[in-house]
Amino acid sequence: MELLKQRILNEGQYIGNGILKVDGFINHQVDPVLMNEAGKEFARIFKDHQATKILTAEISGIAPAVSAGLHLQIPVVFARKHKPITMPDQVLLTLSPSHTKGRMVELIVSPEYLGKGERVLIIDDFLATGKTIEGLIQLAQIAGSTVVGVGTLIEKTFEEGRRHLEEMGLVVHSLARIKSMTEDEIVFYK
Amino acid sequence: MELLKQRILNEGQYIGNGILKVDGFINHQVDPVLMNEAGKEFARIFKDHQATKILTAEISGIAPAVSAGLHLQIPVVFARKHKPITMPDQVLLTLSPSHTKGRMVELIVSPEYLGKGERVLIIDDFLATGKTIEGLIQLAQIAGSTVVGVGTLIEKTFEEGRRHLEEMGLVVHSLARIKSMTEDEIVFYK
Repeated sequence: MELLKQRILNEGQYIGNGILKVDGFINHQVDPVLMNEAGKEFARIFKDHQATKILTAEISGIAPAVSAGLHLQIPVVFARKHKPITMPDQVLLTLSPSHTKGRMVELIVSPEYLGKGERVLIIDDFLATGKTIEGLIQLAQIAGSTVVGVGTLIEKTFEEGRRHLEEMGLVVHSLARIKSMTEDEIVFYK
Repeated sequence: MELLKQRILNEGQYIGNGILKVDGFINHQVDPVLMNEAGKEFARIFKDHQATKILTAEISGIAPAVSAGLHLQIPVVFARKHKPITMPDQVLLTLSPSHTKGRMVELIVSPEYLGKGERVLIIDDFLATGKTIEGLIQLAQIAGSTVVGVGTLIEKTFEEGRRHLEEMGLVVHSLARIKSMTEDEIVFYK
């Protein structure tokens, strides 16, 4: 997606340790127009996958997931990292390592909103090692749902998360695939 | 907003202790079509307030804020509750009591994305005691921004958050105003 790549080139900032700062339009400040375009693009890519629900992880997955959900006209469930008091005692829970937090985080979904027979499209902001997305896949699996695809805004191809997902037989699409990053240069894959 | 009120009547659940569970379309599962309609409504209500930025709080404020931002064509900043490593050392920070967590939480905004001269529209999911929104107002004030209005999806009028905000001279609009709640009945204001 050219609009996203251009935005990354103009405003993205490599801050070391494999971390791309895109706080100006995704992770802290959000550009709703860009998110809407990304949502349209996800809907175009996955329109034939007959997804019935989108699954994402709080926090930064919410904006692209809700945009995709609007254009696919399906609901979005965001996995919580802390169990709110509105959630039932029995939940779907998995542990996932957080790169930016340096520890394991919980990913929690209520069985009220994810169950047997759902066809789940996973949407997130980043595909790096793929660990968060693997956590979401596990949640969908223990719910008895089928994962029909994975879409992310930005992929860091050098962290090889895609390989694990494709080995599971999943279709993976990222709107901007970064091949390498330094302080001076961000290079996209193809 | 009739669509939202109807949804609350059909699917909202009073679970005691003043808490309305709307996890099926706002707080855990999100209905993107409903959020888009809410965003349109916020844009219609606040179109003459010349907001340059929307400010909300993670997590559940993000979906309505991004929808409003799309229809007003302005960026959205979501205050973080934990400082991510991509944020500079100097930040705008305030403490806010969380009703559902039973403790104080931090609300953190990077000065990179909120500064002097901004006209800030605050959007959130709930207006209850108004404490979270007061925290967001404080962040805007220490940034040197002007708050031009407050919009929320659901207001619990009996918690009187509106009174404090209106005493500050702020325009407050909620799309569904709940006057009283029991396990059997949810009554809207006017």
